[in-house]
Amino acid sequence: MLMSYSQYYLEQRPQGPATDKDVRVRTVEVEALNEGQLLIKNDYFSLDPAIRGWMSDEPSYMPPIALGDVIRSSTVGTVVESRHPDFAKGDIVYGLNGWEEYSLSDGYFLTKVPKDSPFPLHYYLSVFGAVGLTAYFGITDAADLKPGETLLMSAAAGAVGSLGGQLAKNMGCRVVGLAGSEEKCQWLKADLGFDAVINYKTEQGRLNDAIAEACPNGVDVYFDNVGGDILDAALLNLNSNARVVFCGSISSYNANEPVPGPYNYWQILAKSATVKGFLISSYFERFEEGALAVAELLEGGKIEFRDEIIEGFGNTLTAFNKLFDGSNKGKLMLKL
Amino acid sequence: MLMSYSQYYLEQRPQGPATDKDVRVRTVEVEALNEGQLLIKNDYFSLDPAIRGWMSDEPSYMPPIALGDVIRSSTVGTVVESRHPDFAKGDIVYGLNGWEEYSLSDGYFLTKVPKDSPFPLHYYLSVFGAVGLTAYFGITDAADLKPGETLLMSAAAGAVGSLGGQLAKNMGCRVVGLAGSEEKCQWLKADLGFDAVINYKTEQGRLNDAIAEACPNGVDVYFDNVGGDILDAALLNLNSNARVVFCGSISSYNANEPVPGPYNYWQILAKSATVKGFLISSYFERFEEGALAVAELLEGGKIEFRDEIIEGFGNTLTAFNKLFDGSNKGKLMLKL
Repeated sequence: MLMSYSQYYLEQRPQGPATDKDVRVRTVEVEALNEGQLLIKNDYFSLDPAIRGWMSDEPSYMPPIALGDVIRSSTVGTVVESRHPDFAKGDIVYGLNGWEEYSLSDGYFLTKVPKDSPFPLHYYLSVFGAVGLTAYFGITDAADLKPGETLLMSAAAGAVGSLGGQLAKNMGCRVVGLAGSEEKCQWLKADLGFDAVINYKTEQGRLNDAIAEACPNGVDVYFDNVGGDILDAALLNLNSNARVVFCGSISSYNANEPVPGPYNYWQILAKSATVKGFLISSYFERFEEGALAVAELLEGGKIEFRDEIIEGFGNTLTAFNKLFDGSNKGKLMLKL
Repeated sequence: MLMSYSQYYLEQRPQGPATDKDVRVRTVEVEALNEGQLLIKNDYFSLDPAIRGWMSDEPSYMPPIALGDVIRSSTVGTVVESRHPDFAKGDIVYGLNGWEEYSLSDGYFLTKVPKDSPFPLHYYLSVFGAVGLTAYFGITDAADLKPGETLLMSAAAGAVGSLGGQLAKNMGCRVVGLAGSEEKCQWLKADLGFDAVINYKTEQGRLNDAIAEACPNGVDVYFDNVGGDILDAALLNLNSNARVVFCGSISSYNANEPVPGPYNYWQILAKSATVKGFLISSYFERFEEGALAVAELLEGGKIEFRDEIIEGFGNTLTAFNKLFDGSNKGKLMLKL
């Protein structure tokens, strides 16, 4: 036997937050590598809201995780054995693997970390990974954002939101962020330079007015990571020809029944607005360009980025569920 | 006194279909024209689903009709008196006025029918008016439709739908229409050349499958005039990078409580789709271009257009409510 390791797999589809009845640990044994395979020892794996979506049996942009399959996730790690022509033992690689100590890979969608990279490994799951590039292409391309316009960012203290807001500030926009605690709001305003912030918990019930007050010139772009009440309030504040970048809907990922679309859906027509479904996979061919641009901004001190790293394989599920109660502070990853 | 005439005004906001308790008739007297005013004797006025929306007190692309105000509508008629420099007695004009025998106007948004127009007057409320131009710019511009793509058209036997479908056929697209009777479906297929039709009444409960069968290559553009269940079924059948032209939501105009957005709103993200709110007023500067293009297609026999004209001022409300039970056959107008 070449290796035995632990992995989280999907035992049953969660109703609400994923529990240890839904997502269980098992031991996997790899006898030997086939031609074209490689084995990666993972250093970090990623905890993202989208993973909860993949646990459900709903038609989406990727197939659901099949029952019995490993929980799908990005990882970064070191090649320990390879029979793949493009990867050698010792290469550091990142890509779509799973919540597991080791990953057996055929190299598909796998990228090497440059040998001379001055950045910590986990950056390749956060600021240079899907999260960073979602913020980058979401703001610089999909949003069609122009200097002087107002951007309203939901989940603004989250990984995508905090980076996206800073990118828009760099473009000369007014940036207003929604977050769920005073500490987060303070961070966005004082440290990241957001023009205004809204605590959506204390403003619950008057979100519409709170947005109107924070966006005196209306909302030109709403970047939607959350759906739900915040989306409804944002739609009521759109300017004519506004754009909604529809990037996620974290408020509904743990729902047990079908969640209706926004009650204010009509505002899309009333404001001649455009809602664009945003999938980072559409930008696959521009990933390198995006990562270089983000790295340059990072090195120039133009943006800052907050990672939250939880250690210990056994803490995966507890850490994952922090995404849904708003208690994480930045891009969440698990360190093995 | 210069003139006395009847008009429909909004007494109270309707709950459900507008009744004669909501929309009442009164006599208006015009003493004399002020400088800059003109008086139009209306020949036709327009009955459109959008008017029901304006009767509600909801934020939209135009202010609601105020209580006590005339019911807003397009009309075409003859100038009988003018103190406006741009309009003379005898000019035939069309524009946004109201459900009334005469309209007092300040010339705002009023257009003259060319003296040599070979077309019947009521065409200026239908195929050359907002309806025709909605179909024209919706299909040729907003939809971003390419030859060979599949267009799914809701309310396909309606004024916008029947014209829009034919325009897409002329562009070399596969056109699939949804309509509410066998007679309408037959007309779309046999007379207008639609590639496939779906009777959404007999297919209720399996709309998703019916659309999948009629669109074997998926839906590239869904032209939404209706909202509701049909929108939900259409969203499930979108191709990657599909476009939804959001033009209306007739299924919800008579609702008494807030109508949620589509349950399958998530599909917009899952398919990287774009939903574009479509308002014909955004194209105001291109109206002449559009009307010329539509006239050319009409004269060349490339499109046909069905008007339904109801006679008699007193029949206005009964005629208007035909729009919501699907019993009208083409662009509905009232002849005075």
